[in-house]
Amino acid sequence: MGGDHGVDAVIPGAYLASRERPDLRFCFFGNEELILPALAKFPALRDISSIHHAPLKISSTDKPSQAVRKSKDTSMRLAIEAVESGNAHGVVSGGNTGALMALSKMILKCLPGVDRPAIATVFPAIHSKTVVLDLGANLECDVPMLIQFAVLGSVYSRLVMGHTRPTVGLLNVGSEDQKGHEELRQASAILAQLDFSGAYKGFVEGDDMTNGTVDVVVTDGFTGNVALKTAEGVGKLSKFYLKETFKTSFMAKLGALFAIGALRKMQKVLDPRLYNGGMFLGLNGICVKSHGGMDEIGFANAIGVAYDLAKSRFNDKVTEQLAHLDMPKLVSASKDQDNKNNVA
Amino acid sequence: MGGDHGVDAVIPGAYLASRERPDLRFCFFGNEELILPALAKFPALRDISSIHHAPLKISSTDKPSQAVRKSKDTSMRLAIEAVESGNAHGVVSGGNTGALMALSKMILKCLPGVDRPAIATVFPAIHSKTVVLDLGANLECDVPMLIQFAVLGSVYSRLVMGHTRPTVGLLNVGSEDQKGHEELRQASAILAQLDFSGAYKGFVEGDDMTNGTVDVVVTDGFTGNVALKTAEGVGKLSKFYLKETFKTSFMAKLGALFAIGALRKMQKVLDPRLYNGGMFLGLNGICVKSHGGMDEIGFANAIGVAYDLAKSRFNDKVTEQLAHLDMPKLVSASKDQDNKNNVA
Repeated sequence: MGGDHGVDAVIPGAYLASRERPDLRFCFFGNEELILPALAKFPALRDISSIHHAPLKISSTDKPSQAVRKSKDTSMRLAIEAVESGNAHGVVSGGNTGALMALSKMILKCLPGVDRPAIATVFPAIHSKTVVLDLGANLECDVPMLIQFAVLGSVYSRLVMGHTRPTVGLLNVGSEDQKGHEELRQASAILAQLDFSGAYKGFVEGDDMTNGTVDVVVTDGFTGNVALKTAEGVGKLSKFYLKETFKTSFMAKLGALFAIGALRKMQKVLDPRLYNGGMFLGLNGICVKSHGGMDEIGFANAIGVAYDLAKSRFNDKVTEQLAHLDMPKLVSASKDQDNKNNVA
Repeated sequence: MGGDHGVDAVIPGAYLASRERPDLRFCFFGNEELILPALAKFPALRDISSIHHAPLKISSTDKPSQAVRKSKDTSMRLAIEAVESGNAHGVVSGGNTGALMALSKMILKCLPGVDRPAIATVFPAIHSKTVVLDLGANLECDVPMLIQFAVLGSVYSRLVMGHTRPTVGLLNVGSEDQKGHEELRQASAILAQLDFSGAYKGFVEGDDMTNGTVDVVVTDGFTGNVALKTAEGVGKLSKFYLKETFKTSFMAKLGALFAIGALRKMQKVLDPRLYNGGMFLGLNGICVKSHGGMDEIGFANAIGVAYDLAKSRFNDKVTEQLAHLDMPKLVSASKDQDNKNNVA
């Protein structure tokens, strides 16, 4: 029911996603009267789908706390409960992000060893792609959370993006050890010693997300959200200037005509729909948020993200990785070291 | 002496800047043996310049605290002292940013009513430009600092960019009142009531810096630095993809040939050299940092930024604006309000 286009993005998106992944099956939660006619257009999809009528829906303007209180019988809640009960491997929603996070935390709970889930996505980079988290679930992050996010991001990079030993960086304002907040310095010291699924490379800066310096960039949700929105803004600005440029003269228009094929190809590579799918990592169940403004192609991509997480048994691997980390011990050892350094 | 190109950027940069501003005069601080031959190439510049030999220089790798300790007789320190003694209206340096900030804070001190200086720059935006501060001088900012930065940014926007009543936003992860850290919410509540040089528009997000939503964006130095570097990274990525695009096919290469004039014009509008000049606002003296990698065109722009600040009597206007703000009263009134809201 969620997003700007509701069933008109979700149902065709599911169809697109299923064509590339023949083992996909769908449970649609929402208003039957809207789902049935939309689904009728895709007989092949109808055959692999079940419909679960939900009389209510959460509005995009509800605050998370309000949404949770009045969530009974809403499509979002029923869909998340399907994951909790094992009837679905994952949930994808284009609805209210805050409500989806609050409800999925409440219903699915966190994986053992994870204090709080993080929102992650993939940034396009020069010659590569970078997983970035947290993008806004937790405005402030303590040391254990940053370490857990490094594990979540590196397991994702390994399982889904195929990096055998993904490189990990902590987002900071400089690469020197003494830079940044105390939490960052402590998390950095711990990660440098830690045996985990990634190879820790130290602090990275804002441009490293698109330079491809590391495979995974870890940050708190406040900084990550500002970085994500800033990147979107500059992307939009570049596109605006490029369009304006090709309008400036007759020669430029002619040039655009010749280059139109290549320009379309570039637009395709940078198409925000291909980067759609905010993963809620760290929950005991797969949950992916599709951007509210996305059409069927964007929604299909978000379904693909959920599919990859489920198929790769991401949550099992994270649980394994975190089981052998003694977080309280790591943090207290690092604090002792920090105190010694300060005394010295 | 600073920056990657030393006198080879500074001297030709000064020449370029002077051609557009006939009332500019220069004092060059550094190694006379390097300055004299560089200056000999520009007789017109030599006539409006004085040379002040400095036997030492601060290295780009010195930590700020080290740099301060061994700053005696360095070109950077002597140049800042020239501003302090009134022998220069402002200082422009391509050297070590941390050292420049530490030394200028120590020597110039803050303007009355300013707790800490901020680094500000101008972002290109769709149909406009946006002043953003702090970009890294203060990793954490309290409520009075954020308010002072709003005043600094809006006075700059008014005097130098010509906005009669510049619009101001606080960078956050959403535009709703209840979003973000407590400091942000409190600063927002105060700015909404405050009579100052700008018109406060509430919270803005990362993409608003390039959307041109407001004329001034205020943030803490950690977030601002990450946003600046992220924007630089995405700009670089866009340029990379555009170049690759025009290499993909014969038709695309042909198109690029036709459009080359327009593409060059676009590159000019987005030329990072035109946005060069990190202003250290809030100091009792003009201080501008030129990016270390800049050539003469970039350095000339940084000189222009310092010129504009001096010429517009920026510091006098800021002092006037801040003189009538009773900061402790504002903050305690806002805290009372916050407590009342929490009780309610």
